[in-house]
Amino acid sequence: MKFCSNCASTVNLSIPEGDTLPRHVCENCGAIHYQNPKIVAGCIPMWEDRVLLCKRAIEPRFGKWTLPAGFMENGETVAQAAVRETIEEARAKVVGLELYGLFNITHVNQVYIMFLGDLVAPSFAAGHESLEVRLFTENEIPWDELAFPVIHRTLDLFIKDRRLGSFGNHMFDIEPMKR
Amino acid sequence: MKFCSNCASTVNLSIPEGDTLPRHVCENCGAIHYQNPKIVAGCIPMWEDRVLLCKRAIEPRFGKWTLPAGFMENGETVAQAAVRETIEEARAKVVGLELYGLFNITHVNQVYIMFLGDLVAPSFAAGHESLEVRLFTENEIPWDELAFPVIHRTLDLFIKDRRLGSFGNHMFDIEPMKR
Repeated sequence: MKFCSNCASTVNLSIPEGDTLPRHVCENCGAIHYQNPKIVAGCIPMWEDRVLLCKRAIEPRFGKWTLPAGFMENGETVAQAAVRETIEEARAKVVGLELYGLFNITHVNQVYIMFLGDLVAPSFAAGHESLEVRLFTENEIPWDELAFPVIHRTLDLFIKDRRLGSFGNHMFDIEPMKR
Repeated sequence: MKFCSNCASTVNLSIPEGDTLPRHVCENCGAIHYQNPKIVAGCIPMWEDRVLLCKRAIEPRFGKWTLPAGFMENGETVAQAAVRETIEEARAKVVGLELYGLFNITHVNQVYIMFLGDLVAPSFAAGHESLEVRLFTENEIPWDELAFPVIHRTLDLFIKDRRLGSFGNHMFDIEPMKR
């Protein structure tokens, strides 16, 4: 951030009075431009003993498999965001969303909030951001071809919980990917 | 938002290619400036049969009682944000945080994420944003003097869960306050 979105003057990093952290402060109008973490909302779409995954048609991680998830928008709830992302990426409708996991990814200032959701039908197709969408049984999940550590962790928790017959809530911090 | 924070040119609302919603797009450099919901992280600080509340020294709702909570910052986890806010507002240290509630407040584009936390000692004091901080038993909670509906809902759930002896996870949408 270089300029004030309110008056177009130069912004400088400084600690406002009563604050404890440096912020982008406009040298003309004094507006303080805060930057905060973003929520990524997603879900595990379930159909019988299978889960729905999407093969990414966009970078990063083009061609890798992921769960439907994306940035939450203003004016919607977290669950509504997860439902919307599932429609957009997998052309699939999920209902009965239950909170499943909260994952902090501090190095990119993101908080993933993942739900369990029931597909209303085994009906799906690749949305604009997907190359392919399909249902996977536990043994078919492409563990080595998953897009992100948070997706790996979410599916791993899900499989373990399902074996135990009990889905708790989970909270984890996700470390940077090793490349 | 009127000006591009990247190049200071005028921004216009338009739907970028491949997107579905109007965004602030710079007419010069093409930068897209997304606006997303913010996370407010907080907790119920517990000491024996009491909970810690803060009397607000700032607007909105100056003089009303609230739980320690505030905007999550970049570079921290949600739980770390709740711990930090409890230090800042109540000069108190909480440990053992457990996820308790997720509250959508869509009309102000906020998601409250509330934890249960144990005070390490009955030691606290008013931080800069508080007039007073004190422990309340169930019967002492000032229900008619709470700052926000989300605080009322969180404490109400907490009291009911504690009577049942079981703290689940909760997810609710909070409607605008009636004035």
